[in-house]
Amino acid sequence: MSQAETVSAAVLVIGDEILSGRTQDTNTAHIARFLGALGIDLCEARVVPDDQGEIVAALNALRARYTYVFTTGGIGPTHDDITADAIAAAFGVGIDYHPEALALLAARYKPGEFNDMRKRMARIPDGASLIANSVSTAPGFQLGNVFVMAGVPMIMRAMLEELAPRLKRGALVHSATVEARIPEGRIAAALARIQREHKTVSVGSYPFYREDGTGAQFVVRGRDAAEVEAAAAAIEMAIKSEGIGPIRVPGPG
Amino acid sequence: MSQAETVSAAVLVIGDEILSGRTQDTNTAHIARFLGALGIDLCEARVVPDDQGEIVAALNALRARYTYVFTTGGIGPTHDDITADAIAAAFGVGIDYHPEALALLAARYKPGEFNDMRKRMARIPDGASLIANSVSTAPGFQLGNVFVMAGVPMIMRAMLEELAPRLKRGALVHSATVEARIPEGRIAAALARIQREHKTVSVGSYPFYREDGTGAQFVVRGRDAAEVEAAAAAIEMAIKSEGIGPIRVPGPG
Repeated sequence: MSQAETVSAAVLVIGDEILSGRTQDTNTAHIARFLGALGIDLCEARVVPDDQGEIVAALNALRARYTYVFTTGGIGPTHDDITADAIAAAFGVGIDYHPEALALLAARYKPGEFNDMRKRMARIPDGASLIANSVSTAPGFQLGNVFVMAGVPMIMRAMLEELAPRLKRGALVHSATVEARIPEGRIAAALARIQREHKTVSVGSYPFYREDGTGAQFVVRGRDAAEVEAAAAAIEMAIKSEGIGPIRVPGPG
Repeated sequence: MSQAETVSAAVLVIGDEILSGRTQDTNTAHIARFLGALGIDLCEARVVPDDQGEIVAALNALRARYTYVFTTGGIGPTHDDITADAIAAAFGVGIDYHPEALALLAARYKPGEFNDMRKRMARIPDGASLIANSVSTAPGFQLGNVFVMAGVPMIMRAMLEELAPRLKRGALVHSATVEARIPEGRIAAALARIQREHKTVSVGSYPFYREDGTGAQFVVRGRDAAEVEAAAAAIEMAIKSEGIGPIRVPGPG
């Protein structure tokens, strides 16, 4: 793979319960970190209700624009689970019971328990391949560049692990996080200069208000590790020149 | 206000840190619940990076479609805070130092501390009105049907309280949540029937996997309280007919 190739992605969260505030979406952040570790850039996320027209419109906008789209939610057995039909409609393909999905689900339930509504979970758009569900059997699926996953975080995470080998990887993004008990506005001019001097990285400034005090984290991200380190060191210098001690925060920024 | 009038809204989350997975967005869920209490329907949410073209495109799509748009993030003093300029560009208006915002900020800082980068926080698109910031002074603003707020949750929440009196309210959505230790697939046919018989409400089914066991919550939402209660009671009946005891979960669903 060429270093110049960018692999992009969008997340489409499907569910009334996110838009009502009933449920805090955590899948987007998880997918973002998961893709980041593969060098794939999450470029956009959208949340839409359980409405076929809304799902189709958002999906078609996103799948035309990004390398991959990851959807979450709406693939269970109940009447409000309409994602599979919406994906088929978006692609203009049919949808029917998938023999392998039917067999997997039939094996899971006791005789008499595999009712018609549960069979809905085996309805898969034509041409899609399954994504195994190691938690609760009912599979997700991949159609073209779209990966359709469950909304329950534990199941979504298992599906993400399962589908990862199918993904093209991009060049890894390196990051460095510098934290200081300094108001971001005090070194904002230096940050702007550092951003201008290190054009291949992005410099983000994130103030925090915590019980133990206020300050900011300065996050440098980029595909050139040496440039990331150079920009982070320059930020540390700028903070020290204000008489304040910066600290490096480990982990991805 | 007529009961038939719907007041709709979208959230536009602006920030690289959400798309990298560094920061878990909690503002969308808070805004959703806040608007719900005013009878305003959150219909869509999007997350875009700190990129003017992306912000402009998303904002123009959303503000044309919904009664209100609420943005979060990108109004601080640093180079990566580009929201105000992007909003001005989206509306095709100029942007300049706002006298009242300048005065508020000048009063906050000690002599010599109100540097040029901090003055950026007083740059407000032409024609916008300010949204007070009781936490850290730098104001948000309203331009047309768009409300521009900070990304730091504590500040965003204060701004939301401040701007609430400007909002049209819709008819309140009532909700009822029934929980049971039952797999949703077991009563999925009954749920579909109840949804058909109560067309003015929406019936959502949300399985859970908790340390103390698995089950599902069934959430009924609608503007007719009697219909919400009737549908919730029908769900309780369906669960009881399987020999399982449902419980009502208090609070909004």
